[in-house]
Amino acid sequence: MMLGARGITAQKISEAEVMADAGIEDILISFNILGQKKLDRLRALAARVNVQTVADNPTVIEGLSAAFSTAAKPLGVLIEIDGGLSRCGVSDIELAVALARKTEDAPGLTFAGFMVYPAPGAWWEAQHFLTSCGSASSAAGLTPSVLSSGGSPDMPQVRANENLTEYRAGSYIYNDRSLVACGASDVRDCALTVFTTVVSTPTASRAITDAGSKSLSSDLFGLEGYGMVRDRPDATVFALSEEHGHLRFPENKRPNVGEQLCIIPNHACVISNLVDHVQFVRGEFWVCEQRVEARGTVL
Amino acid sequence: MMLGARGITAQKISEAEVMADAGIEDILISFNILGQKKLDRLRALAARVNVQTVADNPTVIEGLSAAFSTAAKPLGVLIEIDGGLSRCGVSDIELAVALARKTEDAPGLTFAGFMVYPAPGAWWEAQHFLTSCGSASSAAGLTPSVLSSGGSPDMPQVRANENLTEYRAGSYIYNDRSLVACGASDVRDCALTVFTTVVSTPTASRAITDAGSKSLSSDLFGLEGYGMVRDRPDATVFALSEEHGHLRFPENKRPNVGEQLCIIPNHACVISNLVDHVQFVRGEFWVCEQRVEARGTVL
Repeated sequence: MMLGARGITAQKISEAEVMADAGIEDILISFNILGQKKLDRLRALAARVNVQTVADNPTVIEGLSAAFSTAAKPLGVLIEIDGGLSRCGVSDIELAVALARKTEDAPGLTFAGFMVYPAPGAWWEAQHFLTSCGSASSAAGLTPSVLSSGGSPDMPQVRANENLTEYRAGSYIYNDRSLVACGASDVRDCALTVFTTVVSTPTASRAITDAGSKSLSSDLFGLEGYGMVRDRPDATVFALSEEHGHLRFPENKRPNVGEQLCIIPNHACVISNLVDHVQFVRGEFWVCEQRVEARGTVL
Repeated sequence: MMLGARGITAQKISEAEVMADAGIEDILISFNILGQKKLDRLRALAARVNVQTVADNPTVIEGLSAAFSTAAKPLGVLIEIDGGLSRCGVSDIELAVALARKTEDAPGLTFAGFMVYPAPGAWWEAQHFLTSCGSASSAAGLTPSVLSSGGSPDMPQVRANENLTEYRAGSYIYNDRSLVACGASDVRDCALTVFTTVVSTPTASRAITDAGSKSLSSDLFGLEGYGMVRDRPDATVFALSEEHGHLRFPENKRPNVGEQLCIIPNHACVISNLVDHVQFVRGEFWVCEQRVEARGTVL
């Protein structure tokens, strides 16, 4: 889930439905929506709140058009372009403009602009490609109202591309070890931690905790180890079982059974998806518990 | 969660509570329990159903004893020994017997036996160690009533250790790609699959699906790729984003946008922990939906 300038960005229709239920009125679903059931739900959602979605291929555009051809108002669609991740998105300006044209010509749809998610280290190339797609479509008579980029690591340079109308960033809310590793966050600004207890100390350098892959996920994100133990930079989370964290410390420096540790995860987003509730604390004090409203909404 | 001969094995107190609520009357919690709140819950649980738990260090034994010293009946405790995983468990027979003695002498507790989870490829060594601990404690006047081993990969040879009184296996219920890889399951016996839709086909060999790490987890389990596409052995799930699966096919052999695929995950257990509901199907027919009762119960 990522916050956009106009509202909130969802990845899946079920996530968007939860957001609408929570009172969010502007939602971008930045994921290709396919299939009659999901299209029906999208149309019902668009009747309740302002929704835009994306497409990167003709099949998705045709499906959206069939669902919205009889709707009260047209659905705004952004064409997703590839920002270097080799994930979704078109990599060719002419194809991007052709899809914009197909969208604008499709009953029930209106071409709203272009969307990109830049790959790590490829922010400038992605901005250049996004701006070029915008210029090319404008030259073809299809002026984009939205040029949307995103990503927490590159957020500080967001003003460098003055063509952007929207920026989608999410991880910055919590920050995590991957953002510390790329210099986008300080350790002190990492707000989400997994609180865990040492349950066993089989050797003088090894401690086993009760936070395994069900709590920390197996996401390495190119880092060594499965998280950073706050206040213990000499520790390594060298392995995870489902329910056990395997930690290594310098000889005779390991904590004792019963001691508690805070682990900053490699990737905060997937942690939110593992837990039903988050505890908010200020310093040493517990403030409140909140439910993770959209956890598990992947359909 | 693993099925034992006498009942069900839980890893965490919250999981055991869900099982008790569901009517399970015999529960082994195969995880060191620490902390006053959890010990209070364990005592409350033991008043409702038959519970045993484990310990591998004096701190845990002392905590359990303090909680059960005034309980109506003593708590049965298994000493966990290390089956080669270098996780929890003691690695020394004398220490194992000393902990058995400490347990038996502790108010509110009774020594129930030994528990091991064998590492992959170390089943025989683990059985030998388990049997040796049992013999040594018997010789010291502490006869174990339970010798407990586990693990789906080695289940076919369970009868080879005739000293075992209990076997804890769970993955075999579903099977998964890791069990296929080690020869313990046939692909046709893999019952849990993640059903996913191709949402984008950016190149002639690449397909992007809507099942990412929030659906398949990032568990590699020593395998290449993040799952096996059923009926498409030529496919590789070469990367996962949170919401996207990145699949590679031979040139011009990729499926089209809108096609649906079944992915056999590397590790079935963590999949159950990601979803709130499972759909049961028989062949092409949907049978029922069931809630994953103990999902997320990691505390």
